[in-house]
Formats: sequence, structure tokens, C-alpha cells
Amino acid sequence: MRLNQHYKAVKESYLFSTVAKKVAAYQQAHPGADVIRMGIGDVTLPLPRACVEAMAAAVAEQGTKEGFRGYGPEQGYDFLRCAVRDYYAEKQVGLDADEIFISDGAKSDLGNMLDLFDQDNVVLVPDPVYPVYVDTNTMAGRMIRYMDANAQNDFLPMPDSAADVDVIYLCSPNNPTGAVYDRAQLRQWVDYARSKHAVIFYDAAYEAFITDPELPRSIYEIEGAKECAVEFNSFSKMAGFTGTRCGYTVVPKGIGADGLSLNKMWLRRQTTKFNGVPYIVQRGAAAALTAEGQAQCRENIAYYLENARVMSDTLSRLGIWFTGGEDSPYIWMRCPNGMGSWEFFDFLLEKANVVGTPGEGFGVNGEGYFRLTAFGDKDKTAEAMARMERLFRQR
Amino acid sequence: MRLNQHYKAVKESYLFSTVAKKVAAYQQAHPGADVIRMGIGDVTLPLPRACVEAMAAAVAEQGTKEGFRGYGPEQGYDFLRCAVRDYYAEKQVGLDADEIFISDGAKSDLGNMLDLFDQDNVVLVPDPVYPVYVDTNTMAGRMIRYMDANAQNDFLPMPDSAADVDVIYLCSPNNPTGAVYDRAQLRQWVDYARSKHAVIFYDAAYEAFITDPELPRSIYEIEGAKECAVEFNSFSKMAGFTGTRCGYTVVPKGIGADGLSLNKMWLRRQTTKFNGVPYIVQRGAAAALTAEGQAQCRENIAYYLENARVMSDTLSRLGIWFTGGEDSPYIWMRCPNGMGSWEFFDFLLEKANVVGTPGEGFGVNGEGYFRLTAFGDKDKTAEAMARMERLFRQR
Repeated sequence: MRLNQHYKAVKESYLFSTVAKKVAAYQQAHPGADVIRMGIGDVTLPLPRACVEAMAAAVAEQGTKEGFRGYGPEQGYDFLRCAVRDYYAEKQVGLDADEIFISDGAKSDLGNMLDLFDQDNVVLVPDPVYPVYVDTNTMAGRMIRYMDANAQNDFLPMPDSAADVDVIYLCSPNNPTGAVYDRAQLRQWVDYARSKHAVIFYDAAYEAFITDPELPRSIYEIEGAKECAVEFNSFSKMAGFTGTRCGYTVVPKGIGADGLSLNKMWLRRQTTKFNGVPYIVQRGAAAALTAEGQAQCRENIAYYLENARVMSDTLSRLGIWFTGGEDSPYIWMRCPNGMGSWEFFDFLLEKANVVGTPGEGFGVNGEGYFRLTAFGDKDKTAEAMARMERLFRQR
Repeated sequence: MRLNQHYKAVKESYLFSTVAKKVAAYQQAHPGADVIRMGIGDVTLPLPRACVEAMAAAVAEQGTKEGFRGYGPEQGYDFLRCAVRDYYAEKQVGLDADEIFISDGAKSDLGNMLDLFDQDNVVLVPDPVYPVYVDTNTMAGRMIRYMDANAQNDFLPMPDSAADVDVIYLCSPNNPTGAVYDRAQLRQWVDYARSKHAVIFYDAAYEAFITDPELPRSIYEIEGAKECAVEFNSFSKMAGFTGTRCGYTVVPKGIGADGLSLNKMWLRRQTTKFNGVPYIVQRGAAAALTAEGQAQCRENIAYYLENARVMSDTLSRLGIWFTGGEDSPYIWMRCPNGMGSWEFFDFLLEKANVVGTPGEGFGVNGEGYFRLTAFGDKDKTAEAMARMERLFRQR
């Protein structure tokens, strides 16, 4: 046997393990310290009531001869595909149910979608970036081109018409920067992709955090996107499904090349290499999309966005530059006083007992920046901000 | 963009859709006919009580602030990995918990494991075969060599020491033939794989149907297998999880090449391209492995095996040659009177209103054979066999 040699080129990420080790060491040395964690990218509120009730009913069904469901369609039950279609219709986006594929999460599909692409494609990823975009392509031996996201472009890089690429990764609202593309910017990306016959992988996992009606929540709000964009989304951040696992991917029927249809290829890939999302979980996800479920999801999101507002207000008062914090659970702040990412991490941990994520862990352009998340407890978030305010007002 | 051209070589399978169309047409023409389906490869009994109760409790936990669980470890919670480790220990197989990876099913992992292998590897698959082994390799452009399974070798092909291969697919108890390798035969495969520095993909999805204590339920019961075999298993057929989705894959730490460890590569692959199985489902799977859960699983399996016994007895009385039917939910019968697979399908549907699966759909060596499954209702299985007995005794 010969193993995939490209795995040797995949870099180990020590970001979160180093953070964990440093925090553990600090706590051991200071057992009484009240450390507040704002580095976590995971939700903390319980599942919406509607989802819990729907899943409890589905579990009971699975225990009866009449209600039992075995293998379901790999691409998802119609009840959920149609619910997602209707969710898009509310955004004025018309999709067919068979363009929607139910998955166990955006991360899986973002990786697996690459199965459909030749190794020779050139991919374009922003820096800083969610590391999965880079690692999945490195594993396949694909050439990666980076585009700089930085303070000059508000961490929203725009296309370079001179560069030829095949696969473009966009994430908006962005992880880790919280920055959100507006319609005009997305239109430029769609036009660019179509001119290059490239495909956009649009990661919309945080779209439910957008409250500004002027900002696009789906790339399909832009004309022509159905000819060039695959959209990945998830119930993880909308409905707190990070441990319950359900997402969906939109593969429009208008995308293809060389007589191959991306939609048909993905259907073939999923029916061959996937067996669908648990029936129980699909019932929970469908409940999140009912009027009652949506109201409960919005309540949870409002809780996190209020945290983000408290954080943004604090940084604004302190005169610290940042992106995100509106329409996003992430805040991407410039480290004060010219500190480096890890230098600021140590400083904040020691002086304020607050933990965040060093921006350098997301790419070279992240050096000198720091990510805070709004997924924590309300009181702890307020306390963390009060500590930062005392710390930086003094200086 | 350039799409993966190998998808053009993937054959469409019309097997189950053709079966469905023929049955629908027959029923439309004969509305009163009592058609019994014995082609289905899906379980029909409800989930064991222990699993239902554990999942109901987990759903409730997810609805509380204290009990809520977000992202879990991609490779599975320790409580389940350890339960699987203990399940192997009962078979006298010692594994470390970090050699066990919890998955959403054997089908996903059988396909995704190929990510770790170079395109140039030569794979060996039996014919007839579970089509997924072939399609996943075709999608990756890999060369496939077939080995003949037929009546001469009781549908249990053995290694050809003259042939060089890299990846070997074995499935025992086999789908579609129900044939089971004994220890001496598996030892030959392990020795062969080691001599070729090849890896065995051992699909053990039906091992829970083995009741004969002389037959191996894991390839790791054979010495040396930990140096050459990856084992795929699932709760689908053991605990009725076909719609609940949970499996596990064993990647021993002793397998590697060129300085790469397969165990470490798989961990890297899964942490990058997968986000774990739902917490709720993992609780259900762990419950299936408790003493109470195992007793309930064995009760369901005994029900299906009793169906298999009724079927085997009928075929034996009629003098029809078959494999399987013991230690397996599948029966692979020779079509009576020299009929072809599809000819027999039509004949059986018309004359007995019984539906099975034509063997030709699983490969060229399946022509002239027919698959029946024991997953149906007890009374309907008995009725189907009574009809077959009347039909073939008359002739």
C-alpha cells in the first residue's frame, strides 16, 4: 500500500491546545482566579424547546413498530428539505428542494465537496481563515493561493481580476473576523467567479446573526450566484446544534463543466459515501424552522448579540479598533499598545483573567489581532468587559 | 474549475429502482395481490427499549442549561469508545480506546478511509459485491481487481499469492451472499495481506448475527491482523440503527507506511472533515452495549435469525442450493431450473407475489442467483416460504 503523502504537508494546529495548556497552567498557579473564557466558538444555551419536543417525539416513534424508521434518503427527508426551501423563500431566494442536501454539518460538506473537484484546481482562501479550508485542500495536494484580509480592507478582501483561480472560499459573517460582506461586494465576487468559470464555496454558517436588513444572508440574493456558488449552512449556530449535528448544502442545478453537473455529482457522492442524518435529528432541525422554533432561535441569538453589543461598546469606549460584533458572534480586535497576539493573550490572562484566541492562529495576517466570542454567559461577559475597561483605562 | 472526471466512469445502479418499478407495475395491474417484500436490506423491528430510554434522557439533557452539550470530540465520546473497547474484550480482542473511532455508519467510513490512500493503489474486491466498494474507488480513479466468488468456493474467495494488491475488501458475514469466513480462511487473508504489505478493509457490519462460537466475529481474533486490517462496524444491524446512524471503525496503531501512521492520519482526517456523531445518538449506542441493551439486541437478532431458519429449511427441503441463512440475515440462493436472476425475479413476483433481489445486480458472478433477506415480519416470511414451497414442489 501507498499512503496519501500529502498528509505530510498538513500542519498540526496547536492553537486551541496551546490555549488550553496555558490556561490550565495559570489556573494551577492561581487556584482562586475567576477565569472567564471568551475564546470558545461553541454555543452555550440549551436547545430551543421546539427542537427538544420534536426530538423527544421522534425518539418515541423509533421505539414503536408503527413509527420506526430505518434507512432514510441520504440527501435528507422531504419534510426538512422543503422546510429549508421555505426558509430561503423568506429571504426571497427561490430554490428547488432537490438543490438542498441535508448534512451532518457544514464542516463535513466543506471538506467532502472537494471530492468533486480535480486535484489541479487552484483554490483561493482568505488569510486569516478557518483552518479547515486550508487543511482539506492540503490533504488533497491542491495549490492554495491566499488573499490578504487586513485593516486596510476591513478584513473583507475583494477579487483580483488578474489572478486565475478555480475554487473561492468566502465566509460571511466571517469566522474569525466577524466581518460581513455587503451586496455590492458579493456582486463583485459573483461577477469575478463567473468571468473565471470558478466556483464559490460560500460558508453562511453565521447568517442567522445578521439583523441588518441591508446585508445579504445568502449569496443567492445576488443575481447570477446560482451559476457559480455552492452555499454551506448549519443549524449549529442558528439553533445550537453543535452537539446535535445537522446542516445543509445548496448545490444549484446550474453549475457544471465538461458535461458534468455538480448537483448530480454531489447526489451521487452522498448516496455512495453517506447514509443521511438521523431521523430524530432531522425532526429537531425541522422544528427549528417552524414559526415557534424560529422565535426561540431568535431569542437565543438575541442573547448572544446583546453580549456582542456589550463587548463592542466597551472596545469603542476604549478606542480599540475591531471588526464584527454586529451581525456576528465574533469580535476581532487589534491588540492594544502594539502587542503581538500571544503577548496580548498572556497579558489578558494574567491581568484580567480573561481568555480569548490569538489571531495569529488563523493566519499571518492575524498577528497583532485577537478573537473574542459572544457565546458566553451574559453576566460573565459583562464582568470580563468591566475588567478590560479597568485595565486599559488605567494605562 | 475542472471537475473530477472519474465520476464519468461511475456506473449508475438501477438495481433497486428497477425492482421498485417492476413491483409498482405489478401491483397496479393486480391491485388485490398480497405482495411480500424479501428484498429489503433494512431492519424492521423498533429500537431496543434501552436505546430509546437513553436517547430520551439525552434529548432532555440538551434542553437544559446544565445538561447541554455542544461540540463533542470528533472521534466520539470516551463513554462510547470505552464501551466498544469492552465489547471487543468480550471477543478476547484487546484494543485501546484511541484505536476506536465513532462514526455515523460503516458506509461513510468505508468511503472516507480511501482519502488516506494514494490513487495508485490497486484494490481487490470480490464479485458479487456491495456496490459501494466499487463506486468509491471508481470515483477516485483507482484500479480495481475483482476476485470471483462462486459456488466452487462457496462464495468465499481466497487469496491468489501471485497477484499484487494494496487494499483488500472483505465482508463477513457477507452482503449479499451471507457466507461467513472461518478462522483458517481469515488467517490466510491476514498472512497474504502482511506478505504484500497490503491493508484489509474488513466490513463486519453483520457480525452480531454470528451465533456459532467457532466463527470469528472480528478479524482481530486472528493473530497479526492488527498489523494489516481496519475493521468497520455499525449499530445498524445489531441495534436497528439504520435510521439512527452510528458505527465505529477500528484503526490499529500498528498500521503504517513511509513514516505515516494510519491511526494518526485517520484522526487528522476526522478532526478536519467530520464533527462527530450527535451526543443523543452516542448515548443510544452506548445503551445498546450495556447488559440490558445487549439482551434486547439479541432478542431482535434472534427474531431475524428465526426467519432465516424458516427460509433455509424451506430451500433445503426443495433441494435448492444456497449460502447464508445461518449466522447471517441474508440468503443467497441459486435460481431454480437454470433461470437467470431477472427471469426468476419476474417469475417469483408473478407466481408467488414474493419480491427478492436479483443477484446479477451485485456483479457478474451474481447472475443465476437471488438474494432473500430475513429482516421481514415473521408471519409474512412464513407465508412467503409456504408459497415458494407450493410453487417448486409442484414442478
